[in-house]
Amino acid sequence: MKILLIGASGTLGKAIDQELRERHEIVRIGHSSGDFQVDITDTASIRHLFEQTGPFDALISATGKVHFADLADMGDAEFTVGLRDKLMGQVNLVLIGREYANEGASFTLTSGVLSEDPIRYGSSASMVNAAIEGFVRGAAIELPRGLRLNAVSPTIVRESLPALGEYFRGWKAIPAADAALAYAKSAEGLQTGQVYKVW
Amino acid sequence: MKILLIGASGTLGKAIDQELRERHEIVRIGHSSGDFQVDITDTASIRHLFEQTGPFDALISATGKVHFADLADMGDAEFTVGLRDKLMGQVNLVLIGREYANEGASFTLTSGVLSEDPIRYGSSASMVNAAIEGFVRGAAIELPRGLRLNAVSPTIVRESLPALGEYFRGWKAIPAADAALAYAKSAEGLQTGQVYKVW
Ligand SMILES: NC(=O)c1ccc[n+]([C@@H]2O[C@H](COP(=O)([O-])OP(=O)(O)OC[C@H]3O[C@@H](n4cnc5c(N)ncnc54)[C@H](OP(=O)(O)O)[C@@H]3O)[C@@H](O)[C@H]2O)c1
Ligand SMILES: NC(=O)c1ccc[n+]([C@@H]2O[C@H](COP(=O)([O-])OP(=O)(O)OC[C@H]3O[C@@H](n4cnc5c(N)ncnc54)[C@H](OP(=O)(O)O)[C@@H]3O)[C@@H](O)[C@H]2O)c1
Repeated sequence: MKILLIGASGTLGKAIDQELRERHEIVRIGHSSGDFQVDITDTASIRHLFEQTGPFDALISATGKVHFADLADMGDAEFTVGLRDKLMGQVNLVLIGREYANEGASFTLTSGVLSEDPIRYGSSASMVNAAIEGFVRGAAIELPRGLRLNAVSPTIVRESLPALGEYFRGWKAIPAADAALAYAKSAEGLQTGQVYKVW
Repeated sequence: MKILLIGASGTLGKAIDQELRERHEIVRIGHSSGDFQVDITDTASIRHLFEQTGPFDALISATGKVHFADLADMGDAEFTVGLRDKLMGQVNLVLIGREYANEGASFTLTSGVLSEDPIRYGSSASMVNAAIEGFVRGAAIELPRGLRLNAVSPTIVRESLPALGEYFRGWKAIPAADAALAYAKSAEGLQTGQVYKVW
């Protein structure tokens, strides 16, 4: 399969690359790195990406930002960051990418454990991750041509503990390689409309 | 309790009013009807509302629109409608309303069954309803002064079958009065961070 991997240089992206590279052709995409660059917050940039990559069999998105802050300091603008970036950025990869997807191609997006298991400063992450999961359930049943759509919801990964561990005290971290398996299950299997929880 | 009921004239709003009116002071709020008017898509209008109502003990929101359409006809703009209206409209009622809420006051938002049980044309509703539920779980734990936050997720209500029944074949409709009980449970109880599924 020809697999577009958005966020290939990231903590999750590198593990997904490692899991899939021996069996598939990986097109590595980043914001500033990789074979191609894209800014998922910009629909024109997304369309330009697909014009360059051409048709594909699977798209995996392991990217997306939200604003982490005390709820007391969060207003409309701070919530809008995550809605435009991690949520609509990934959703637009599907909405635009479907035009370039081969029959039966799959889309796999990334949500995260905070949709169900919240932390301090994480109200936007909880909102956005849940929204991605709702979108996946809702949109999967309407996709044409056997196109599939799933999400992977990883818990905190071990490789991110140096940067993020203080916000996840008491969470059992997983190796990024364990999360990568769920992306393989989505891309190489036949299920659709699923949220794979890796926790 | 002094309860602000946003969407008081609606199908759910009328049933909530009926359930609560004998025990509480209800301030009825609509877009064009009621004691006060607000446009939840406009943060200035929300702030103006609270300047008029003054402090309150509970806010119940039974309002919010999303764009229903075939996924094939849904792009960024169509998804943004529901993100600005039903999602951020209700979220902004909390983010702005918390400044006017009495200690221990509750916020109760409305999501809906489509977050988990999708229908044709419902991809935005699935996204938005799930996002509301994620926000509730994430934000509830960070609210100060004993403020509480829950969501009610009704299935299709019987009173809406003439307008919406064709999209919900096979769903068991509930009377709006059954959904109204969940709003009472949220406002009159002590739980927080909960999604009450009425289905
Ligand atoms: N790490 C975890 O423990 C964990 C757990 C659960 C969920 N998640 C979620 O998984 C996703 C990836 O996390 P990560 O820790 O792997 O991220 P990361 O290490 O920070 O990597 C981010 C990747 O996204 C790319 N990127 C950044 N901005 C972009 C943009 N606007 N458009 C396109 N690509 C962009 C980066 O490309 P360049 O390097 O080229 O800039 C990089 O490849 C995030 O949504 C995160 O919330 C992470
Ligand atoms: N009906 C169902 O079966 C059902 C099931 C599950 C979930 N829901 C959800 O519950 C919510 C209410 O549904 P409903 O059927 O009761 O609605 P509805 O009968 O259409 O009533 C809508 C209410 O919201 C008010 N409103 C409209 N636009 C507004 C705005 N921009 N700002 C503030 N208020 C506004 C209206 O006020 P005016 O009358 O003054 O214009 C009215 O009171 C919706 O989010 C819906 O998705 C409904």
